[in-house]
Amino acid sequence: MIIINLDKSCKTPLFRQTIDQLKKMIENNTLKPGDKLPSTRQFADQLGVNRTTIYKAYQELWAMGFIESRSGSYSFVRQRRELKETCTMKPVNSINWSKLSNENTCKVYELFGEIGYPFSEAENDFEGIDFGRLHPDTRIFPAAEFRKSLNKVVAENAQTVLDYGGSKGYLPLREYIAHRSRLHGLSVNSNEIMITSGAQNGIDLCMKLLARPGARVFVESPTYGMIIPTLTYYGCEIVPIPMAEDGIDLGAIEREFKKGLPIFLYTMPNFQNPTGITSTQCHRERLIALFEKYRIPIIEDAFEEEMKYFGKVPMPIKSMDISRIVIYVGSFSKVLFPGIRLGWIAADKECINRLSILKRFSDISTSLPEQAALADFCKHGAYEHHIKRIHKIFRKRMLLAVQSLQEKIKHKNVTWIEPNGGYTIWLKVKDTKLSYTELNSVFHSHGIRLAAGKDFFLHPQKEKYFRLAIASLDEAEIEEGINRLAKSFYRIFK
Amino acid sequence: MIIINLDKSCKTPLFRQTIDQLKKMIENNTLKPGDKLPSTRQFADQLGVNRTTIYKAYQELWAMGFIESRSGSYSFVRQRRELKETCTMKPVNSINWSKLSNENTCKVYELFGEIGYPFSEAENDFEGIDFGRLHPDTRIFPAAEFRKSLNKVVAENAQTVLDYGGSKGYLPLREYIAHRSRLHGLSVNSNEIMITSGAQNGIDLCMKLLARPGARVFVESPTYGMIIPTLTYYGCEIVPIPMAEDGIDLGAIEREFKKGLPIFLYTMPNFQNPTGITSTQCHRERLIALFEKYRIPIIEDAFEEEMKYFGKVPMPIKSMDISRIVIYVGSFSKVLFPGIRLGWIAADKECINRLSILKRFSDISTSLPEQAALADFCKHGAYEHHIKRIHKIFRKRMLLAVQSLQEKIKHKNVTWIEPNGGYTIWLKVKDTKLSYTELNSVFHSHGIRLAAGKDFFLHPQKEKYFRLAIASLDEAEIEEGINRLAKSFYRIFK
Repeated sequence: MIIINLDKSCKTPLFRQTIDQLKKMIENNTLKPGDKLPSTRQFADQLGVNRTTIYKAYQELWAMGFIESRSGSYSFVRQRRELKETCTMKPVNSINWSKLSNENTCKVYELFGEIGYPFSEAENDFEGIDFGRLHPDTRIFPAAEFRKSLNKVVAENAQTVLDYGGSKGYLPLREYIAHRSRLHGLSVNSNEIMITSGAQNGIDLCMKLLARPGARVFVESPTYGMIIPTLTYYGCEIVPIPMAEDGIDLGAIEREFKKGLPIFLYTMPNFQNPTGITSTQCHRERLIALFEKYRIPIIEDAFEEEMKYFGKVPMPIKSMDISRIVIYVGSFSKVLFPGIRLGWIAADKECINRLSILKRFSDISTSLPEQAALADFCKHGAYEHHIKRIHKIFRKRMLLAVQSLQEKIKHKNVTWIEPNGGYTIWLKVKDTKLSYTELNSVFHSHGIRLAAGKDFFLHPQKEKYFRLAIASLDEAEIEEGINRLAKSFYRIFK
Repeated sequence: MIIINLDKSCKTPLFRQTIDQLKKMIENNTLKPGDKLPSTRQFADQLGVNRTTIYKAYQELWAMGFIESRSGSYSFVRQRRELKETCTMKPVNSINWSKLSNENTCKVYELFGEIGYPFSEAENDFEGIDFGRLHPDTRIFPAAEFRKSLNKVVAENAQTVLDYGGSKGYLPLREYIAHRSRLHGLSVNSNEIMITSGAQNGIDLCMKLLARPGARVFVESPTYGMIIPTLTYYGCEIVPIPMAEDGIDLGAIEREFKKGLPIFLYTMPNFQNPTGITSTQCHRERLIALFEKYRIPIIEDAFEEEMKYFGKVPMPIKSMDISRIVIYVGSFSKVLFPGIRLGWIAADKECINRLSILKRFSDISTSLPEQAALADFCKHGAYEHHIKRIHKIFRKRMLLAVQSLQEKIKHKNVTWIEPNGGYTIWLKVKDTKLSYTELNSVFHSHGIRLAAGKDFFLHPQKEKYFRLAIASLDEAEIEEGINRLAKSFYRIFK
């Protein structure tokens, strides 16, 4: 006979008490594998409780793997070969994931696993003034408007927006993007557009389509930090092409062409990340002509196309793409909110078809309710309205940032590039013997942080660089932050 | 002087009329590249309109690439080398995407690009009774509850849930999943869980981690249709292991081991897709022992873990995973709604770390508002409540389906496997000379469709198979559908 004590005055339900005590008896081997448990009726009578109490307890013990039971028969204590308990289990080091993972994954993990761009998740809780992360200012999110749209599409259209969606994305959103693209001089229709789970997903799909191990890929130097690990995963040879004042160095491209044609170029013509440089119309025309000659695709990352708040910025390379070699990657992350992982690719229809097949086998489709909500949000003019609003806000913020830098940082060793829009200013720090770690710790001690330039280069550089992003800061923070930056440089160069 | 006619009584705004007429003049070459436009003041005076009308028109024409203007100077008609118009542009076939794409992408595109599983997007509009797609019944979506949660998290927490999220996923959701997993005998904590954009994203990330070109991968035969193209992309040698009555054929695994060890096994122990077979506890223990011996990972796809509505189903293979070789892939798609692309992976912490790095460089993270909404939905018991509800519903529906088959389809050439739960019944059709296309057209002519078995096999089979999914059908539809199926078979075998 199994003896347990149930306390009817205790808050814990009786079935739970039963479970806990039986579990303990099994764990300390008082009840052994194969031991028969009383029938629910017997046990209920013995304990003076309702039979369903015992039934529920047995069910849960069965679900947890402690007992075996067959309908119409007795329950037995199970022979558990397994059932680890997280807390009590000893660490098992028998699996070598590094050996099981493929070579490129290991490279990515070892080189970039701990880095994060520009900061690891562990560093998320920085409390000072953060010039480091390129995160849009959460305080100006048009959240209420977007919430209305979310609400509306789920209320009115749940059976569609909660069901599987197509791998090319939600048609009304693709249509809106096609429409909006015209404003930027792009003439594409909805068949030439697919929705991606943010621009990063778009970039990854392009690599999935085009990458070949050992093939050369041209990237700007410096470039978006996440590109280097992504290309490393695909086993490509990364060829860094220096940034000139007016965009990627075209002469360097021609020289590299002679050493071996690349399978594609990855470029950010507007407010290049991290330098903030915007290439000229003339530069863009020469660039596309170079790649057109060999029919080599250009991935045009237009993540901040909408951030032309100072007015004149040339049209996308894609707008001149008569040969259809340009794969244009767009994003809502830097102008709306990055949490909703929505971007798009605009490219030749045949290329979109191939990319959408890869998308289908990678994650079926991008989340549908958010696509539908965004389409609704855009259709009602909320997107355009918000863009106007952030243009006004960031024109002021950027002017203030540039002006403050000019006024407060006059040391000859510190120079920067004035951007045409966007969120970032690229600082160059000459003639310092301090390492990035040491420079960062000076910044930290003044309550600011910047993104270290090293993460944007494939190879170490002689000079030190920092990316100063104003995306998440208001005017007071920018002003105070640049004060602190000035003090930091004073300390660095004193 | 440029002459245009503005109609002030017309509904079209004056600036729009100005744009349209200037655009037409540029397009028909009345205005040629380099031609100077009048200043905004001059033109406004000439036309008798407000100067801002002309200013707006010039701005838009500039944005569309028709004119060039510098501040403080005149505007000129632009030399457009490019600017294609979707409608009028002649097709350019200069780019050979098949040549530009890598070899594996081409294979996937050519073999599987037009297929879709089990139907292409073009076939989405089938109007009969659809046993073909494994889509949950949209009529029982708990949409109102989920909408409340979405609303709440965006209203209360916009600054967090609309900002970038971590690549492992939203912690409260991971915690809920860890908690819920215990019900299924899994003891994992939130560090051993990462959120993916649906189970397919989870599977793809596992391949990204483990796959090596040419390496052997064991899959069940038949298997989930999307696995074959996914593994084809990664260049693996797919080794199909037949399904026996009690699960994947363990003897066949041992024989294949001798020909060469695989890098992993992909298996669905519950309600296997497409056969509906659930392996026994004993089978699972023998299976894990086989792979443990060589420390070979098992990907356990538990996409319908929650669909155990007939009661007793053995615990996950992962629950016996003392060596931590099992990578468990879970999904909300088949019990809640597939539109919100949310699944998860439960695995050894080190494995999760590696997978989350790959996730970061693939799409940064899964959409955050939906993760937060789902966490809220689950926390309030709505998930458990819904599972109870669909258990009740599908227990009845499956009983009805099986009973109807037994009553109405008595031809010796048509047999099926009775499932232990889930949504699918696997039919075998012997001794027919009709092809899948011909059989399908008989079904279609009776207003039903089924998923053709061929898409679940790597190699053609002698017998014909069909997957009958009741996921999206109610009782009346199931009954009527099986009537029609019976009539179809009567026609096929008459």
